[in-house]
Amino acid sequence: MSAGTAKPSILIASGPWAAAPWAETIRARDPDRPVHCWPDVSADFRPRYLLAWKPPAEAVAAARDVAVVFSLGAGVDHLVHLDLPEVPIVRIIDDDLTGRMTEWVTLQVLLHHRQQRAYDRLQAKAEWRELRQAPAGEVRVGIMGLGVLGRAAADALKHLGFAVAGWSRTPRPDAGIATFHGTDGLDAFLARTDILVCLLPLTPATEGLLDDALFRKLARDGPLGGPVLINAGRGGVQNEDDIARALTDGTLIGASLDVFCEEPLDPASPLWRLDNLVITPHVSAPSAPATLAAAIHAQIVDYEAGKPLRGVIDRTAWY
Amino acid sequence: MSAGTAKPSILIASGPWAAAPWAETIRARDPDRPVHCWPDVSADFRPRYLLAWKPPAEAVAAARDVAVVFSLGAGVDHLVHLDLPEVPIVRIIDDDLTGRMTEWVTLQVLLHHRQQRAYDRLQAKAEWRELRQAPAGEVRVGIMGLGVLGRAAADALKHLGFAVAGWSRTPRPDAGIATFHGTDGLDAFLARTDILVCLLPLTPATEGLLDDALFRKLARDGPLGGPVLINAGRGGVQNEDDIARALTDGTLIGASLDVFCEEPLDPASPLWRLDNLVITPHVSAPSAPATLAAAIHAQIVDYEAGKPLRGVIDRTAWY
Repeated sequence: MSAGTAKPSILIASGPWAAAPWAETIRARDPDRPVHCWPDVSADFRPRYLLAWKPPAEAVAAARDVAVVFSLGAGVDHLVHLDLPEVPIVRIIDDDLTGRMTEWVTLQVLLHHRQQRAYDRLQAKAEWRELRQAPAGEVRVGIMGLGVLGRAAADALKHLGFAVAGWSRTPRPDAGIATFHGTDGLDAFLARTDILVCLLPLTPATEGLLDDALFRKLARDGPLGGPVLINAGRGGVQNEDDIARALTDGTLIGASLDVFCEEPLDPASPLWRLDNLVITPHVSAPSAPATLAAAIHAQIVDYEAGKPLRGVIDRTAWY
Repeated sequence: MSAGTAKPSILIASGPWAAAPWAETIRARDPDRPVHCWPDVSADFRPRYLLAWKPPAEAVAAARDVAVVFSLGAGVDHLVHLDLPEVPIVRIIDDDLTGRMTEWVTLQVLLHHRQQRAYDRLQAKAEWRELRQAPAGEVRVGIMGLGVLGRAAADALKHLGFAVAGWSRTPRPDAGIATFHGTDGLDAFLARTDILVCLLPLTPATEGLLDDALFRKLARDGPLGGPVLINAGRGGVQNEDDIARALTDGTLIGASLDVFCEEPLDPASPLWRLDNLVITPHVSAPSAPATLAAAIHAQIVDYEAGKPLRGVIDRTAWY
């Protein structure tokens, strides 16, 4: 046991995720610091820091004296509506998480572009048949959300030769691609987009944005035969009834969804059975506890040394 | 009709492919030049140039006075064993073809890395379940063949964060990745490779190289649980009985094949039914006649102006 003075304590409330890997990583790096995992805490425990993913209300109540709240993932929509004290909320910006998201987005764009599901169906029939294939340069990818994740995805897709543009709420002249912004720029962005990649956070302004009216504004004159939707942002940004209808009536010719309004997705949802829809279970950029806990711990050490926090969100914008 | 002097003539013998798109592209660019498509030629027709893909013996005989033979694809193994005159054989090196191959290789590497087929099976069961996922940086991709195609694939996979190395027959110190070469370097290359990407040409030295003995030298200590084979080079480089066995007994945990010893692949082949094997029908880098015919025509114009040919193969090495 360490004989050092006890340091300000940490509470980990990780909702559906196992808390132990996060706690073990921090304890290994900082044995003198008390690290507790919800719900295994005494009634009078008052942590200095809350590390949270979809925390229960009781954990939020126990955290009423914290100095900083750290989200265990890139999004903070699961925190902003809670009754947390008026302290900084910090989200994760991490190279590991960015790389994983870039992999998933690149895979899904290529999977639709190269018609992999159609070739899978041909394989199941032992049928050797070549499908018409446009080069990447003729396919216009549009990325919604030009933060760290959106710009990394844009870089990877540009490298593969796709015609990439982006849209964001506010101007992003540094994105390295053609950009559109704001409500005024949305229609022109959609009209030049064959494959729409959504990496937007869930905010009051984005809730339900991906709906039938938006899908009908996407380009229909591209080489794929119709538009494709890819969403790895947040499920609340999409209207799932509209997506199911659009994939059935040809408004969309394909989609990949990693996020859903309610997770896990109900086994009875008709989405599972659409063969032009690729479903993955919110795994586009899984948080790797060992990597991310070390990054949060480093932030805590810096904060206690008087350095500024990195990744503090704007509570009014939700990101 | 043009009143110009007839220029040296072209014969297109495109085997199973339609010759018309190639001919039309060249005629549109060069109306004064006679362009004929096999077998629609007179018995005494003697072309100056042969543009060929798997040409029949009669077309080769008609081409006995040609000055240059142009392959209509990246490979020339379909030409080197024919009774062609001792003139330059030129293969296609084209940005469009390179980009398409890079797309296909990147898609297949990501598809195995991100366990897409396993998620497809979960989707079919409406089952929401996260699979363990390593970051790209822990996955060692090994590329066999470091010509234009291999280096472009290496660049794209490096950009995504994979640990990329390459192997080639002769040293390639300029490849921008860790390289191994020759028979002496092969075992060490295989021992550090989780995903093997083969872009080798078919030559006397590579025929049947991808066999059980080679698969057993691949790394088994990587994060995927076993090695993966991806071949978009030539079918003759692989032993298909060994691949089927390796995918069944766990020597390989997955594979993607775009090329086969005999194409089209026999509908009765057991390969079609292996669910850890992705089959595409030789479409990784489809020749786009409009683009490639223009490049070959530009070579002819340059050649007639006394400039050197680009992409002349070494007949003893077959590439």
